Amino acid sequence: MAYELLYWPSIQGRGEFVRLALEEAGEDYEDVARGPGGVDALMATLKEGPTPSFAPPFLRAEGMTIGQTAAILMYLGERHGLAPQDTAGRLWVHQLQLTIADLVAEAHDTHHPVGSGLYYEDQKAEALRRAQDFTAARVPKFFAYFSGVLGEKDYLLGANVTYADLSLFQLLEGLDYAFPKATARALAQHPNLAALRGRVAARPRIAAYLQSPRRIPFNEEGIFRRYPELDS
Amino acid sequence: MAYELLYWPSIQGRGEFVRLALEEAGEDYEDVARGPGGVDALMATLKEGPTPSFAPPFLRAEGMTIGQTAAILMYLGERHGLAPQDTAGRLWVHQLQLTIADLVAEAHDTHHPVGSGLYYEDQKAEALRRAQDFTAARVPKFFAYFSGVLGEKDYLLGANVTYADLSLFQLLEGLDYAFPKATARALAQHPNLAALRGRVAARPRIAAYLQSPRRIPFNEEGIFRRYPELDS
Repeated sequence: MAYELLYWPSIQGRGEFVRLALEEAGEDYEDVARGPGGVDALMATLKEGPTPSFAPPFLRAEGMTIGQTAAILMYLGERHGLAPQDTAGRLWVHQLQLTIADLVAEAHDTHHPVGSGLYYEDQKAEALRRAQDFTAARVPKFFAYFSGVLGEKDYLLGANVTYADLSLFQLLEGLDYAFPKATARALAQHPNLAALRGRVAARPRIAAYLQSPRRIPFNEEGIFRRYPELDS
Repeated sequence: MAYELLYWPSIQGRGEFVRLALEEAGEDYEDVARGPGGVDALMATLKEGPTPSFAPPFLRAEGMTIGQTAAILMYLGERHGLAPQDTAGRLWVHQLQLTIADLVAEAHDTHHPVGSGLYYEDQKAEALRRAQDFTAARVPKFFAYFSGVLGEKDYLLGANVTYADLSLFQLLEGLDYAFPKATARALAQHPNLAALRGRVAARPRIAAYLQSPRRIPFNEEGIFRRYPELDS
C-alpha cells in the first residue's frame, strides 16, 4: 500500500525522519505537499478528521491519520522491521527516539530561542547566547550519551538497524550542516558515532535516497540552519 | 507489584506525569529518591544497565528500566487501562501526549531560553521576551487545539480517562501556577478545558493524591515556576 506523508514541501524538517524510515523500509509513499496540491493540500487536512495534528508531519495509513514524528516512527517501525517486536525492545527504541527528538528541538531553538513565530533576525542576540550553550554544553552531553549506548555495536540496539539509528544519522547530518565546527569537534571525541553515520549513509536504500531528488537539500528554512555566526 | 520511580525528590517536574498515572491506576510505587537513598540513589542508577536514561524520570518495572516520560506513560497506559488497546487508539493517545510534552518543554524554556545549565537570573532579559511570546501566541494556539480535540466529550478520547487527560490536567495546573493571569485568560476562551481539569481533579484517586503529602507543591525549581514578571 502507498502511504501519504503530509509535510512541508521545501524542507527536510521533522518530516525527514519519517521519509528516512519509509525509504529504508522500501515503501511507496506520496509526499503530498510536493505534488500538485502543494501546501494547500497539507493545510486543508491538518485539522481534519477525528485525530487532527497540531503541526506537520502526519501520516495517512490504513484509514488512520497519525501525527507527531515519534508516534509515526513507532508505527512504521513495528510494521516494517525497524524496531524490535518485544515490549522491552519497543520501549527502548522509542526512548532513544524521544531523546534524539529532544536534541532536535534544542537545535531548532538555537535560531529561535524567543519564539517560532518571529524571524531569526529579530532574535539574533538571544540566538547567539543559546547557540553557544548548545554547542559547548548540550551537544557534547548528548553525544556522550548516544556514544555510550552505541558502544562497539553496529547500531544502537545491536546488529539490526532501527528507526532510532536513522534518526540519529539525520541528527548528525543536520548538526554537521548547521554547526560544522562544533560537530566535528564533538564527533572527534566519539568516533563510533561518526562510524554509525557512515554505516547508515551506506545502506543501499538510504544511499539511493540521498542521491535522489527526493532528498531536499538542507536550507535556512528548516530545523538545521547554517548561520556561521552561531557555530563556534 | 511495586514500581520504582526514579526522579528528583523535591519537584513535580516531568516525574509528576508518571506519578499521576501511577496514582490513577492505584498502583504501589516507590518514589526512590524521596526515600533514604535520596538523590544519590537516583544518580547512581541513571546511566546504569542496558537501557540508560539521558535524564530522569525513569521507571523500573518487570526487570526493565524505561526512560522518557511519554514512553513510561505508554507502558503504564497499556498495562493499567489508561489507554485504548487497539493500534489506532494507542497511537492517538500517544500523539496527544507528545503534543502536551511539546508545550511542557516550551513552558520550561520561558525561564530557561538560553540554557538549562544557567541560572534564571542570568537569562532574565531573554526570558521576558520568550514568556511574552509564550503567553500571547503559544498557549492560545495549543489550548485551541486541545479544546477542539476535547469538544463536548468528558475526556480527550471519549468517556474513559487516559494518561493524556492526566497529563493535560497537570499541564493546566502548572500553567495556572506559573502564569495565573495568562492562563485564566486562555481558559476563559475554552471552558471545556477548565471542565476537564476539574473532572480529573475530582477523580477519587487523583483527589486523594492531591491532598496527600505525596503531592509535592509547585516551586521555583521545577518546570512551572511563578515568576510574576513573566506573566502578562
